Amino acid sequence: MKSNNSMKVVVVLPDIRSSYNVGSIFRTCDAVGVSEIVLAGYSPRPVDKFNRPQKEIAKTALGAEKDVPWVYKDSSLKALRDLKNEGFRIIAVEQTERSIDYKVFFKDLFKRNKNKKGKKTKSNNLMQEIKLAIVFGTEVTGIPKGLLKLCDDCIDIPMKGNKESLNVSVSAGIILYELI
Amino acid sequence: MKSNNSMKVVVVLPDIRSSYNVGSIFRTCDAVGVSEIVLAGYSPRPVDKFNRPQKEIAKTALGAEKDVPWVYKDSSLKALRDLKNEGFRIIAVEQTERSIDYKVFFKDLFKRNKNKKGKKTKSNNLMQEIKLAIVFGTEVTGIPKGLLKLCDDCIDIPMKGNKESLNVSVSAGIILYELI
Repeated sequence: MKSNNSMKVVVVLPDIRSSYNVGSIFRTCDAVGVSEIVLAGYSPRPVDKFNRPQKEIAKTALGAEKDVPWVYKDSSLKALRDLKNEGFRIIAVEQTERSIDYKVFFKDLFKRNKNKKGKKTKSNNLMQEIKLAIVFGTEVTGIPKGLLKLCDDCIDIPMKGNKESLNVSVSAGIILYELI
Repeated sequence: MKSNNSMKVVVVLPDIRSSYNVGSIFRTCDAVGVSEIVLAGYSPRPVDKFNRPQKEIAKTALGAEKDVPWVYKDSSLKALRDLKNEGFRIIAVEQTERSIDYKVFFKDLFKRNKNKKGKKTKSNNLMQEIKLAIVFGTEVTGIPKGLLKLCDDCIDIPMKGNKESLNVSVSAGIILYELI
């Protein structure tokens, strides 16, 4: 991603109820080369705890659920804490008072991490170490405040019209393709 | 869209079977300010021919089906011909031999239509007249060859991984947000 193979992107899905959306996000993550999907809380998994494949996800993920590495964590809070401890920058996709337009945020993020002259320097090494965890919340209630506190940044997708939000799998597609 | 209110974008959905996808695309079109959705062939409509609301679309469009203007045409071919006659540039989102990366295509399109010095000239007037019809095909068989022949351009979304395609509503989100 971002013509830099060592950038690591993890997608975190806390309490996304719809198998349809989770399956669709698996396909997008496969298409952009996401390192891992963290399913947390009541988000459905490609296999249940007895390792039995879940039809609903298979139907929409079309095989991507076997290609994209994923883990399941009971606690979304613990999932984010673990990622923080592993050095990930946690980015919430959520409409909050402190949210920044996703395009502006990514542009700025890569600008800051890019060596101005394109030479190999410390800042170039920094570029190669970018580890991002992108958190998508449920469409109805969004990302809980407790989780938001653990996020380093909040970004949102500008919208016209009367609706409050895009479908979560559509949001994931827009955000992840902007990262490429 | 593209900070130019007079750019007109129409989304064409020929033979998209899933109400879930059509509903999700309605939400995205509302969010970006698409002028009209053209539903054609066997694509489901927000209301049937007796004007009865269709629950499946309402469930996923969450009201956007009432806010975004739409029309239904039996024949997808006729729908595209009508748009051509109205001066629309028809752009197919499809993997073909002549397809161009969507980001490259839009960048080039707006570059060509933008006045270099930002002054009001003939080329600026041209910019204000951009009328684009974006066609999304079914995920399984894609856009039929007969329809592709009527398209002025083909664009595609680059993909890593093993899957052949993104979910059509995700593709629509990625393409339409790139247009903003």
